[in-house]
Amino acid sequence: MITKNQIKYIRGLALKKNRVKEQCFIVEGEKSVAELLNSSFQIIDLFATKQWIAENSYEKANEVTVAELARISNLKSANNVLAVVSIPEEKQGSSDGLILVLDDVNDPGNLGTIIRMCDWFGVRQIVCSKNTVDIYNSKVVQSTMGSLFRVDIMYVDLVTYLAKVNTPIYGAFMEGENIKSISASKNIHLIMGNEANGISKEVEKYISKKVTINNVGGNTESLNVAVATSILLHEFCS
Amino acid sequence: MITKNQIKYIRGLALKKNRVKEQCFIVEGEKSVAELLNSSFQIIDLFATKQWIAENSYEKANEVTVAELARISNLKSANNVLAVVSIPEEKQGSSDGLILVLDDVNDPGNLGTIIRMCDWFGVRQIVCSKNTVDIYNSKVVQSTMGSLFRVDIMYVDLVTYLAKVNTPIYGAFMEGENIKSISASKNIHLIMGNEANGISKEVEKYISKKVTINNVGGNTESLNVAVATSILLHEFCS
Repeated sequence: MITKNQIKYIRGLALKKNRVKEQCFIVEGEKSVAELLNSSFQIIDLFATKQWIAENSYEKANEVTVAELARISNLKSANNVLAVVSIPEEKQGSSDGLILVLDDVNDPGNLGTIIRMCDWFGVRQIVCSKNTVDIYNSKVVQSTMGSLFRVDIMYVDLVTYLAKVNTPIYGAFMEGENIKSISASKNIHLIMGNEANGISKEVEKYISKKVTINNVGGNTESLNVAVATSILLHEFCS
Repeated sequence: MITKNQIKYIRGLALKKNRVKEQCFIVEGEKSVAELLNSSFQIIDLFATKQWIAENSYEKANEVTVAELARISNLKSANNVLAVVSIPEEKQGSSDGLILVLDDVNDPGNLGTIIRMCDWFGVRQIVCSKNTVDIYNSKVVQSTMGSLFRVDIMYVDLVTYLAKVNTPIYGAFMEGENIKSISASKNIHLIMGNEANGISKEVEKYISKKVTINNVGGNTESLNVAVATSILLHEFCS
């Protein structure tokens, strides 16, 4: 069962200010929780149906009904399990290979897809501007489908960070060198900009090469940032 | 102004059965309607705010208030203009270049992104299985952001269609030849499968080459079909 205070606490974690205060976030659904159990992330509390507990032999679970789960879930249809998870300390992983830099990516679905694509293409480190959407936002967590637990992500002041970088810094623009004609170095930073405004002026100063995806048709003016990131990672990491 | 019957009629077009019966669909929002006005699609009725009508000097518009527009809109926040548009006859365009084939793509957002990416990469023809989501679904129309008016799309029985194809037929699979190592012909068919089940067995028989996107990280089991399509079109068309 679940108490009123627990419900209030868990629902409160939908807000970033509460996640920051409590240093916790929510992971829901069987697939994501299975990936969570395989990760080094620390579970504080776990609420699950009798069936899930039996199938997963997780002894510390709080058994709840489907109706109780629906009261704490952020999903349209609540799944069989929900975990309260401790936010780990940010870490800077290996600086080998491509490091992805996000300059104010705002949409949770886009960030989730980007994290998933980093996991697919073996990118181990994402560096986000302070105004990039929170990775512990429930929509981001959900759309990463477990990839969140395998990619190191940190939030920094980008200008301070980029000033110290000693690899080539590529930036995605509507006008730039066609990525198909570039032989990229193995160790690079790649910057993707905000959905509406692209890469900011202050960040642009640090870019050593502007790159672009060939607009073959010539009719559409922009690409979704998650799709563009996916194509660039395929080109540079695959 | 707008009558109760008009409201009922327009709201009814949210359902496919009514779109099929009336042979009409809805286009909303300034960007999409601007693209519509530039296309050969035939507008049957157009509802817009005083400001939009003044700015666009479109004389046949029905002037409505923002509140009236909200009553007929499918958008979370209604925009300044909504058009009722005649569904054109399906046409088979040029068979040159890459022709994209969709085998039961179900998600409107995915189909919208795919149509947009075809427009970006200069793909002129999409061939959909009968069970692929309707291109005149409001979420599809919205997410194509006007690209719908520039790509020829038809719904066919795929097995009958593929039996007559005389180009190489590529299909996207989790296991296949790495697309980075393929020199594709200019004229090919490329088949993408359903979100959950991939390409069906009956369709698979017609595929001459299975292709795949290199899973560098090796941790994630699947790619979103719109993202995978984007990467493949970049590789084959750019």
